[in-house]
Parts: sequence; C-alpha cells; structure tokens
Amino acid sequence: MIVLSSPSGAGKTTLTRKMLAENSDMAMSVSATTRKPRKGEQDGVDYYFVSTSEFEAMIADDQFLEYAKVFDNYYGTPIGPVEEALQSGKDVVFDIDWQGAQQLTQAAGGDLVKIFILPPSKVELERRLKTRAQDSDDVIAKRMAKSENEISHWTEYDYVIVNDDVETSMEQLRAMVTAERLARKRQLWLGPFVKALVQGG
Amino acid sequence: MIVLSSPSGAGKTTLTRKMLAENSDMAMSVSATTRKPRKGEQDGVDYYFVSTSEFEAMIADDQFLEYAKVFDNYYGTPIGPVEEALQSGKDVVFDIDWQGAQQLTQAAGGDLVKIFILPPSKVELERRLKTRAQDSDDVIAKRMAKSENEISHWTEYDYVIVNDDVETSMEQLRAMVTAERLARKRQLWLGPFVKALVQGG
Repeated sequence: MIVLSSPSGAGKTTLTRKMLAENSDMAMSVSATTRKPRKGEQDGVDYYFVSTSEFEAMIADDQFLEYAKVFDNYYGTPIGPVEEALQSGKDVVFDIDWQGAQQLTQAAGGDLVKIFILPPSKVELERRLKTRAQDSDDVIAKRMAKSENEISHWTEYDYVIVNDDVETSMEQLRAMVTAERLARKRQLWLGPFVKALVQGG
Repeated sequence: MIVLSSPSGAGKTTLTRKMLAENSDMAMSVSATTRKPRKGEQDGVDYYFVSTSEFEAMIADDQFLEYAKVFDNYYGTPIGPVEEALQSGKDVVFDIDWQGAQQLTQAAGGDLVKIFILPPSKVELERRLKTRAQDSDDVIAKRMAKSENEISHWTEYDYVIVNDDVETSMEQLRAMVTAERLARKRQLWLGPFVKALVQGG
C-alpha cells in the first residue's frame, strides 16, 4: 500500500495518475465523499459521491479504513475495493491527507509506504492554487491555510519529493516503488528460492 | 553508508564497481587484509595488504569498524578513510560479508542501507566460482561452503537483488540508492526548506 499526501496544489494528482498509468499492477483507492462533484469528475473514478446520510451509515457500519470531515464535507476510504485489489496481488495507491494517513497507518499495520509531495516554493504553491479558477477566493484562502497545516505533517512520511519538475519527480517515484518492491520483507518468494539455491536447483 | 554482501560468485564486485563509476559522490571503503594479493590487485585500491602483525596491531589500537578472520586470513574495515569520506559528504560503500555487516550495524547505528545479492541459481553460482581459474579445487570447495553460510544470512538485509542480468540488477541498485536518498530522515535540508515554504519564500 502506497500513500501519497501533499498540500493541495503540490502536483500530487498529476503524479499519482502518471504512476497508475505506468503500472498495470497498481490500483487507485477511490475515496468516498459528500462534497459536490467538480466539473469533469466522474462518480466511481474520481470519487464515490454519496450523501451525508449515506456516508454516516457507512461509518456506522465500519465500512471505512479511514475517514475525516474537512470543510463540512466527509472524505473516506471504503475498505471493500482496497481488500479486493490487495487480494488480487495489486499495490493500492491512496491519495489521502495526513489525517487519513495516520488512521491508515493504525489500521494497516506495517506494510505501508508513505510519500509526501512538497511544492518547490510558496509562490509556486499559491500560483498553482489560484490556477484552479473554479474555486472562490474564500475557498482558496481556506485551502492555503489547510496547505500549511498539511505541510506541517511532512515528518510523518517515509519519503519526501519536492515537485519542481514533473519528470524528475516521476523518476523519484519510480525509484521508490522499485526499491520498496525489492525490500527483503516484501519479496515473499525469496524464502523458498534461497532454500532451493542452497539445496541445489 | 551502503553495505553490499553476497556469497562469492554472485556478481557483487561487478555491480559495486559499476555503481561507484556512476556516482562521483560515492566512495568505496577499502578493506585491509592479510591475504596475498591476487594477480592484478593493487594495494590501496582493492585492499590494503598488510602483514598479520600489522593487522593485529591495528586491532589492538581500535582502528577497525569491523574485522573478522576467514580461512586463516584477517579482513577488516579501517575507520579513518570511512570517516573522512562521510565528512566530505560522500556515501560510503562497503563490500563486506555478513559478519562485517553485523559488526558495522552495531558500530554505525541506524544510517546503514544493507543490500544482499543472490545468484540466480546454484548451478550458476558453481559455474561462476569455477571460472576463477586461479583458485585451487580445495579453495573452490571451501568457498562454496562459505557461500552457503553467507546465503543463510540473507534475512538480515534491507534489500535483496537476484543478480540474473547485470543491467537489471544495476537498475535495481540505482533505484535503491535514489529512493534511500529521498528518505525523509536523510534529507536534512528539508527542515529549513519547509519552514521557508510556510513562512513564504
């Protein structure tokens, strides 16, 4: 399981999509939310868009790996699709904030790789936030404050990428995925392999 | 600090040399040994070739990060050059066996990345060992036994590479180095960077 967190506007969504496109053995965890779809967002792809009462029923039914309320809206990770993807041997990618990452760490135990993506500068972060023209000034100001709060949790992550150039960041992300897959504890086939190596074969 | 261990004949030396050639910011830790130089080996490059009494004087003077006796010969890592390289900001690469890796782990504390390199099969391992024509059958048999002993310590390492194809293994090694350098705990400049990011700049 791979967690990607970042302040809004650091370029996380672009990096996540590129990584998914390159890796057929990865699945995106689609979050559920009670916020309204933005233009172009598809139900079941970008989010599962549900009503507040549906969301609260799912909470009551223990259907979330993690959830939180942000700006009057709920966001959460439904357990079902994640378990399915893991059981089919895929790595599951989570695009969640620090609160979600903390809850997931507790729920998932050890086998979680947490990556934090930072913008190259505050000026660039503000520029990127303002480019999302569809949001009001008020929402941008709120999101800027949330960004700073999110950034303050960078020390809870395994890796940090400063996303100045998308291609460089992609190379770094690829290296992290390749390396983590070669971690001894994740190569479960090695036990029998080493046994055969010593006994001959 | 990066430790590479493997049974003799798994291709570690080739991989280590290629990695060093690609990274000007890496330095090889040159071991001291009391064994005789093989054809082509240079003092101070492949090993520091010293006498048994010199080696034992260095032990008495606490000049080794780790040392061990293998087949009647001493092998050890002198502290001085390692400290110098680290202070000049270089990563130091250690080509040492499991005993050395264990001692180094104790001496160095946490900041050590340990990589184990395995041969693709026992047949290939034997073939590679026998190709070193300059060794006698007796030495080959001894080394084969030592290989199995070395292999049995693979679980003490962070990463495992099965070295079937040198280019693939090199890509894996590069990914490990890139990823480990992006580990949050190693990016010491990030603290001030994040502070500037939040305060503006």
